Amino acid sequence: MTTTEQAEPAPRRRRGRPGHDQSAILRAAVELFNRRGYDATSMGDLAKELGLTKPAIYHHVTSKEQLLGQALDDALDELTTVVTEATRRPPGVSAYQRLREVVRRSVEVLVAHQPSVTLLLRVRGNSEIELAALERRRWLDDRLADLVADAVAEGALRDDVPPALVSRLLFGMVNSLVEWYRPGGAYDQAMVADAITSIAFDGLARHEP
Amino acid sequence: MTTTEQAEPAPRRRRGRPGHDQSAILRAAVELFNRRGYDATSMGDLAKELGLTKPAIYHHVTSKEQLLGQALDDALDELTTVVTEATRRPPGVSAYQRLREVVRRSVEVLVAHQPSVTLLLRVRGNSEIELAALERRRWLDDRLADLVADAVAEGALRDDVPPALVSRLLFGMVNSLVEWYRPGGAYDQAMVADAITSIAFDGLARHEP
Repeated sequence: MTTTEQAEPAPRRRRGRPGHDQSAILRAAVELFNRRGYDATSMGDLAKELGLTKPAIYHHVTSKEQLLGQALDDALDELTTVVTEATRRPPGVSAYQRLREVVRRSVEVLVAHQPSVTLLLRVRGNSEIELAALERRRWLDDRLADLVADAVAEGALRDDVPPALVSRLLFGMVNSLVEWYRPGGAYDQAMVADAITSIAFDGLARHEP
Repeated sequence: MTTTEQAEPAPRRRRGRPGHDQSAILRAAVELFNRRGYDATSMGDLAKELGLTKPAIYHHVTSKEQLLGQALDDALDELTTVVTEATRRPPGVSAYQRLREVVRRSVEVLVAHQPSVTLLLRVRGNSEIELAALERRRWLDDRLADLVADAVAEGALRDDVPPALVSRLLFGMVNSLVEWYRPGGAYDQAMVADAITSIAFDGLARHEP
């Protein structure tokens, strides 16, 4: 992952947006991968789920790996945009403000792309596609740790926890919401984003006035 | 290594504590379930991994489900002990102190039982055993939310985030460590427990003196 790739997120979509049928197949595939596990899901299972024949599926997609790659790219492209924008902001905006903003926007991405982010967070590196996704995740993790380090350096954040550990725990809390968040449930997206930023930056303990 | 010789003491111990061979099989099974996914792993895969024949495995364990159940019980029994002790403490100990303590002890359990807790956190409810494990997890989540509510009621915690949401996010942060924690890595268990309690209770922002 290099800065050259940061610069041109758009060309990655060179194969064009998936058509309507392809989108429906992708959605069903991701749902099935999350429910049963990617390795345990066959194209036959997917065909059955959609009430299609296997040849009908293969008319739209070339392989199970292609579906996995598209889903992981969906999640990673969104997260990369959020992180790249946060690290590129004009110097007038503090690292602390950019970090709070990246937390808030990550919550938005997780809620809007919950199925593909869930799949991404479960990737273990069992194939080339999964290893490439892990590489992109690592790049994002490093940028986030840099941003935390910048916020510590400017004096806005406590300096007694290593920035890389702060970053892991902070985004560990953010990412945990894919496991339980339900759109239309008890908490809306803004409430969750507020709760995470309040807890992480200001703490749960009530400060004496 | 011949399986016949290893096998001798096992049958008498089948219902009690796992014997030595059974423990080794369980450890390998959990590692394989976490790496490939439970549904994608067969008893044949497990036998291959251990360099045993399938009949040799079945001499020690009755089914893949039995191995799953044992691993989930291992994680759940430990977590239940921690949570039950935290909720039963003498009234002299504040809910706030008990909550901080349960966070710290949960980190200990996650580090000491990382493979089985990892498996537990990935359970989706695809079988009776998984549904029973989810039921036990829900019970733990409810106790933790009650403890957070008690700490809010005693005035120690902020009251602008619903206790159930605090509990999800707090233990979401704790649980996230199974994804990246490596024993002997950059951070030891005490450092991670300190970092989580500092971030969650006191916040990342540096408070003005």
